Amino acid sequence: MATDREEITHFFTDLQDRICQALEDADGLGRFHEDHWERAEGGGGRTRIIQHGAVIEKGGVLFSAVHGPASEAVLNQMNTREPADFYATGVSIVLHPLNPMVPIIHMNVRYFELSTGVCWFGGGIDLTPHYVDADDARWFHQQLKTACDRHDPAYYPKFKTWADDYFFIRHRAETRGIGGIFFDYLRPENDEHKAALFAFVQEVGNTFAPTYTHFMRKNRSLPFGEAEKNWQMLRRGRYVEFNLVWDRGTKFGLETNGRTESILMSMPPQANWLYDHRPAPGSREEQTLNALRKGLDWV
Amino acid sequence: MATDREEITHFFTDLQDRICQALEDADGLGRFHEDHWERAEGGGGRTRIIQHGAVIEKGGVLFSAVHGPASEAVLNQMNTREPADFYATGVSIVLHPLNPMVPIIHMNVRYFELSTGVCWFGGGIDLTPHYVDADDARWFHQQLKTACDRHDPAYYPKFKTWADDYFFIRHRAETRGIGGIFFDYLRPENDEHKAALFAFVQEVGNTFAPTYTHFMRKNRSLPFGEAEKNWQMLRRGRYVEFNLVWDRGTKFGLETNGRTESILMSMPPQANWLYDHRPAPGSREEQTLNALRKGLDWV
Repeated sequence: MATDREEITHFFTDLQDRICQALEDADGLGRFHEDHWERAEGGGGRTRIIQHGAVIEKGGVLFSAVHGPASEAVLNQMNTREPADFYATGVSIVLHPLNPMVPIIHMNVRYFELSTGVCWFGGGIDLTPHYVDADDARWFHQQLKTACDRHDPAYYPKFKTWADDYFFIRHRAETRGIGGIFFDYLRPENDEHKAALFAFVQEVGNTFAPTYTHFMRKNRSLPFGEAEKNWQMLRRGRYVEFNLVWDRGTKFGLETNGRTESILMSMPPQANWLYDHRPAPGSREEQTLNALRKGLDWV
Repeated sequence: MATDREEITHFFTDLQDRICQALEDADGLGRFHEDHWERAEGGGGRTRIIQHGAVIEKGGVLFSAVHGPASEAVLNQMNTREPADFYATGVSIVLHPLNPMVPIIHMNVRYFELSTGVCWFGGGIDLTPHYVDADDARWFHQQLKTACDRHDPAYYPKFKTWADDYFFIRHRAETRGIGGIFFDYLRPENDEHKAALFAFVQEVGNTFAPTYTHFMRKNRSLPFGEAEKNWQMLRRGRYVEFNLVWDRGTKFGLETNGRTESILMSMPPQANWLYDHRPAPGSREEQTLNALRKGLDWV
């Protein structure tokens, strides 16, 4: 039997539950607050927000499943003008940690289908360390490569490059972080292929919690001072710039009357800007900037 | 003799000088730091930044005069495909005060011409109080109305409505602040008309310093506490959202390889986000939100 949207949706709701549990366990203090919302045109979501945790200062783990007539914007995106209904479901995560030595993380897995029969999967995981640590970067990319390789050895190199290109802050000529994997419009050719793509998306979703809680546990007690906090605030400013200026999902949501508070859960609790800040030559901050480039091979 | 671009450019450089002097005098502590930059394709600018003043926490007063072959983006904006050179000059200001009782202000005056003979003026001044005070709002709009009325009684109502429409944060369904005036593509029909439009733009430029230093002097010592600072940080978050998501000038600059540090001088020194923050019923914060609407008649 073909993988259907009910099965996919069920996996995503369960994934949200499991990830929230794993994050609360690793945090030890923070608890998710849930807002259940409905969309006038059809469907809705469960927005779960955590603030003031021991490790996570602010973040969200969001599930949504929305449907209705596909807007012109959606049809344009698919290069079609044929009117259709759409169904879209997914889980989105952004976590901003308190300790600058713990990286910011983003994950998304999503499924989209049109009543005309077209459907596709998308998603990815990427990491934005305030300070790039080469060992951490290698370990992170290795987790993603291992997950990808279980499904197709072509996935990791392809989706790693895609992440480099996608998470790029053009006006700064720097990547948002050390990247990860990003994929979109993965369209199944038949039932078997759909089941295989869904298995891969499940793998990506399931890779998130063990990967990020590893960094939460390992780095939560690393020492830092005012200098590191100041740098963290500037890096968060860059995160804001990427999400509001370049991130297609954010722009699409804000321009098409999405739920603003859910979309902007990705904003950090605090971000700073200094005019033309340049880190001292040879500093860890400068080393980090030098590592925010496309095409670095971490594994 | 027709108003030419040298005359306009000279006025703008002098305006920058006079405004910086007036702001330093009113601040008493902060001093502008100047970066002179050049554009590879032609022209350049003087970016003047003030940080850590007694009244102004962070801000910029920018002059630029750039020229070269008009990009496709510029030609599209003018509904033409005929290749041309362009010349663009202007002064742009954004100031973020330390005291939440002093409003954020933005001013821009600009002139643009194509080698095909087309030229136009644009600009405006708008105010973003962290707390809307009705007396201050009326006084502010009265200054702008007086300046407009000296040139054309139709200007204030028209440009006030334009500002309401332009400085609108669609995804929040709120205006950025209490507006002001905004105008663009004011195209002269003949030499006399060009001189008249330039006289109006000069009036707008000259209105800026006395208007804003009035608020700096009057409100700089008003008391505030942690609650007001927290609210200021959230309002600055909205300022960031408007500028990065909706402001055409910012988007155009970032997408066309403008000087990033000059464009993003509009970013506040610090901005905060809280999930789904709602001010207490009846609070001054709620009253402010209620005043961030289009179509309020302040004069």
